[in-house]
Amino acid sequence: MALGEFDLIRKYFTRPSRSAAHVVLGVGDDCALLQPASGMQWAISCDMLVEGRHFLSTVRPERLGHKALAVNLSDLAACGARPVAFTLALALPRADEVFLAGLAQGLFDLADRHGIELVGGDTTAGPLNLCLTVFGEVPPGQALRRDGARPGDALWVSHAIGGGLGDARLALEVFRGQLSLEAEDFDAVRLAMEMPQPRVALGLGLRGLASAAIDLSDGLVGDLGQILRRSGVGAAIEVENLPISPVLARQPRALQLEFALAGGDDYELLFTAAAAAESLLLSAAAATGVALRRIGRIEAAPGLRLLDSRGCELTIALRGFDHFSA
Amino acid sequence: MALGEFDLIRKYFTRPSRSAAHVVLGVGDDCALLQPASGMQWAISCDMLVEGRHFLSTVRPERLGHKALAVNLSDLAACGARPVAFTLALALPRADEVFLAGLAQGLFDLADRHGIELVGGDTTAGPLNLCLTVFGEVPPGQALRRDGARPGDALWVSHAIGGGLGDARLALEVFRGQLSLEAEDFDAVRLAMEMPQPRVALGLGLRGLASAAIDLSDGLVGDLGQILRRSGVGAAIEVENLPISPVLARQPRALQLEFALAGGDDYELLFTAAAAAESLLLSAAAATGVALRRIGRIEAAPGLRLLDSRGCELTIALRGFDHFSA
Repeated sequence: MALGEFDLIRKYFTRPSRSAAHVVLGVGDDCALLQPASGMQWAISCDMLVEGRHFLSTVRPERLGHKALAVNLSDLAACGARPVAFTLALALPRADEVFLAGLAQGLFDLADRHGIELVGGDTTAGPLNLCLTVFGEVPPGQALRRDGARPGDALWVSHAIGGGLGDARLALEVFRGQLSLEAEDFDAVRLAMEMPQPRVALGLGLRGLASAAIDLSDGLVGDLGQILRRSGVGAAIEVENLPISPVLARQPRALQLEFALAGGDDYELLFTAAAAAESLLLSAAAATGVALRRIGRIEAAPGLRLLDSRGCELTIALRGFDHFSA
Repeated sequence: MALGEFDLIRKYFTRPSRSAAHVVLGVGDDCALLQPASGMQWAISCDMLVEGRHFLSTVRPERLGHKALAVNLSDLAACGARPVAFTLALALPRADEVFLAGLAQGLFDLADRHGIELVGGDTTAGPLNLCLTVFGEVPPGQALRRDGARPGDALWVSHAIGGGLGDARLALEVFRGQLSLEAEDFDAVRLAMEMPQPRVALGLGLRGLASAAIDLSDGLVGDLGQILRRSGVGAAIEVENLPISPVLARQPRALQLEFALAGGDDYELLFTAAAAAESLLLSAAAATGVALRRIGRIEAAPGLRLLDSRGCELTIALRGFDHFSA
């Protein structure tokens, strides 16, 4: 007794509009209609999640719904934009109501926490695929960009209090059977992998403080490379300062560094700021319940150097995650 | 020698910004930044295209690029919105450069014709899937919606001069081996299927004239049902007035009606308007090079009646295309 496409949309993805300030017309017409606040710029980002690549078939649908929206909100956070609304396009192998109910639950729980509205989308049969587009607003000239890093800026990364970089990758390697962890440790890193927390409030707090920012999705080194390339600068990372969770800290040091530097799926904010901004940055982070770590500095000479605690250069074979690299 | 994800994006999907009026920051940062024109509302729509369902693996990549954007622009047209920008998320089984070059060509040719910009997106490995989100603008209160049809309104449909409804479905049935056509006829209907022309200019012309509108993607009867349901009205269609192309007209009459009423993939505008608007409507259509046909009327009693040339009710088993119906 399969539900039809329109029934599915009505049943799981249509709710009374809540944030009426921006949403003139939500799900159910050819287009959604939004009324931008006067003078604001719109930040737009789009991420596609494919089964087996961005999530495993074992993920609970609630967590998948959360993550699909979280990775998109993370892009808005990296721009310092305030989330407003999103669209969801969904290809499903079959109309599985348990799956859809869970997915909608996870999605709307996170949407409600950020006061944003699902305004439209598409549903079709096909290999499982979720494509979300998110909209946020930011005052003109205040968006955080990738191209503003300057030599002498400090390099910062956010992390959960008690957490660090590389946990999501650690969980993935357990799923892949490459590593094993005690149950409690696995649950902790699995949560990091399946329930990333977009640093939206921190992103808002970084307006006017950060000179450049990006969210960590492909791994620190690869994502930092985007800032360096677009800003025309280089950087040095003091690897001793990388935030490492207690769980990852129980792994061999080489693996800690590999996962923290190039693990991927962290969804923390990596940003640069003038040295003088430090105390304001720490206050902004504390106000949002997120920890910050200063992990290095921007340099005029191009390239990325990894330094040990004595300031000596390390050679570590790493690369950012790339969906199509050979 | 596979290109990496970032190389692919740079090579095929990054161009110098052209319509600088709205685009503050395009492809290449965490988010695109757009500056909405003062006071305008934003219309947003999102369509996902899956191989084997929305297009065949035999389609030329140029035509696929065209169609992926065209079906999205068709939603903006149905709202009377002026297209501004779009995002593209792409899942690809492999990095096939011939495919990508063709896809980008078809996409940008149509984008250029509408003066719109690709502002962001995502590329990943996965079963072939294209998800586009389009943004347009419309003055407050002027968007065409599905809920404004009133009893007594005339029911209109657009079509290509020399074309009609149902041609795309006719082509699909040839691909499926259910029907055969002479080469020239097949080329004509294949063009209708693979290169739909979004009625953007007509949609703009309908502002202030049409009381309700929708674009035809799932078939006339199903899509009209959306207008009827949301407007709380019924309708009668005079089937003799359905626009039928010369190619489809050579098929049996029952098949003509089935394909015109429920074929799907037409991407024409179906709309309602007060009887007094007729001459203005015909002028608006003529100015945009599109033909219009008055095919029926809106009635107070719910339901849809199909009438023959003598006004007698016909019984035809039909249903709108639904991706998940049993």
